[in-house]
Amino acid sequence: MRVVVTGAAGFVGRALVAALARDHEVIALDRNCKELEGPGIQAVEGDFGHPKVLARAFSRGCDAVAHLATIPGGAAEQDPREAFRVNVTATAELVEAARSSGGIRFVFASSIAVLGDPLPPLVEDATPLRPRMVYGAHKAMVEQWLATMSRRGALEALSLRLPGIVARPLAPSGMKSAFISNLFHAARAKEPFVCPVSAGATMWLMSRARAVDNFVHGLMMPFGEVGDPYAVTLPAVRVSMAELAGEVARQAGADPSFVRYERDPMLEAGFGRQPPLVTPAAGQLGFANDGSLEALVGAALAGIAQMEVVR
Amino acid sequence: MRVVVTGAAGFVGRALVAALARDHEVIALDRNCKELEGPGIQAVEGDFGHPKVLARAFSRGCDAVAHLATIPGGAAEQDPREAFRVNVTATAELVEAARSSGGIRFVFASSIAVLGDPLPPLVEDATPLRPRMVYGAHKAMVEQWLATMSRRGALEALSLRLPGIVARPLAPSGMKSAFISNLFHAARAKEPFVCPVSAGATMWLMSRARAVDNFVHGLMMPFGEVGDPYAVTLPAVRVSMAELAGEVARQAGADPSFVRYERDPMLEAGFGRQPPLVTPAAGQLGFANDGSLEALVGAALAGIAQMEVVR
Repeated sequence: MRVVVTGAAGFVGRALVAALARDHEVIALDRNCKELEGPGIQAVEGDFGHPKVLARAFSRGCDAVAHLATIPGGAAEQDPREAFRVNVTATAELVEAARSSGGIRFVFASSIAVLGDPLPPLVEDATPLRPRMVYGAHKAMVEQWLATMSRRGALEALSLRLPGIVARPLAPSGMKSAFISNLFHAARAKEPFVCPVSAGATMWLMSRARAVDNFVHGLMMPFGEVGDPYAVTLPAVRVSMAELAGEVARQAGADPSFVRYERDPMLEAGFGRQPPLVTPAAGQLGFANDGSLEALVGAALAGIAQMEVVR
Repeated sequence: MRVVVTGAAGFVGRALVAALARDHEVIALDRNCKELEGPGIQAVEGDFGHPKVLARAFSRGCDAVAHLATIPGGAAEQDPREAFRVNVTATAELVEAARSSGGIRFVFASSIAVLGDPLPPLVEDATPLRPRMVYGAHKAMVEQWLATMSRRGALEALSLRLPGIVARPLAPSGMKSAFISNLFHAARAKEPFVCPVSAGATMWLMSRARAVDNFVHGLMMPFGEVGDPYAVTLPAVRVSMAELAGEVARQAGADPSFVRYERDPMLEAGFGRQPPLVTPAAGQLGFANDGSLEALVGAALAGIAQMEVVR
């Protein structure tokens, strides 16, 4: 099958493109993604909301779309109007292009940011969406639009709410949660790390490899059991910062005391107060977390090693 | 206080402008609304999402915005992309203009279309939003965006979900529910009426006068008690089509048998299966319905007579 992937040159995008290209034809769409071209991968460069770019990406039709391109949390707070243009308006153009090009399955990279903060003592499938960040509101709006498309039978649209994905590259990502990934890099480099949340901060995390598995599953699974509102919070491994730092140090061979905690109240509130999470809807559909803290950290560190080989 | 009203020349808009102008300064914004100018009323003509039009409307700042302009249900189904531009993208521009011009209160004309269809056996404040119509999805998306603004303290934004408003003029409105208003016109003209829903169809209705009262209340009320998600389904009078036709005939002096029922399954599903409705959140904030079928029909017929005097 032919799959259009937006944000193809991003952190999750390039791994998803590689995974899909093993068995499928991939149209990789991003502003700069020529380097991704290869067997089974055609690159289309440009802004995914631009009519001409969309026309090129969908010129031969497609079977599915994975929509990962976004202006993320921190960057969206800096420029809410540009973020609205990309995250909402351009996304609606993409949805229309997908619909009219026969793209039946549409898997959308939503975010736990739709839940907002402060979170209730337990987050479950029925927890109402109360985004506080611009980014979270945009994701919730697109979830609503896609759910309407699914209800109408116009698309098989499914929104996957991603937790924090580790470990991103050190490069600026526009993400407020980048500090979580930076912990991994510091441990590997045997450098001290100043952590902007407390040792007791709790976070929902997933490795990039697991996120890719979940996207591939979302693109290929039967759609019949997906229920309204056609959006699921993905299962995540919930860890405290102290637990995470300890396991990262152990696996990376760093001194267990490499982390010093200097709590930033805003980051603590936004990313360090994630309560127990139960996600039966996603579980029943076959989505999974990394299984354990050990496996999560192992996959995250393997991912960094792999990125270094590629570069 | 100074209030910007969009959709000022519309059915509800012109009555709201007139009501507000008794005690407040009104900036009436619509594509054609010069005729509305008068004591306390300044007309600004143009597309409400256009930067220059917004600059003119908000040039002297404002205290509140009532946002009524929209591409309604039937018209949105005909041209979903133009509807998205107006109902979502341009609305976001308006919200930004309001926020940056000091417009604190922002009352948004949402719709029961956010609830979708088929509806559950009872609709209450916690009923999830599952829009099926393009228009309902747009309204739900804007509700989400405005709620985020309220959560952040950027605006005191409140979405009012309007039921069917009666009795609209006979002119084409782009509304699928226009048949409900047409019943009133037929009774007054002593003409037979072919009703596209069954005698047992049930509908949530409100007179224009009551809708205006609710908008004025939303613009002026203390905001402290408004809770997340900053959106309320307004109380409505729930009637069957047979009850409504009987009361309209009685008050308009028409033959009680002036209605013939020729059920259109689509309209019946979309507008004729409205179950019992309980709206404690709106009630506690002081919003009200017309009180009785008799009062609703009386207000609707008085509204038609008033429109005829004006024209």
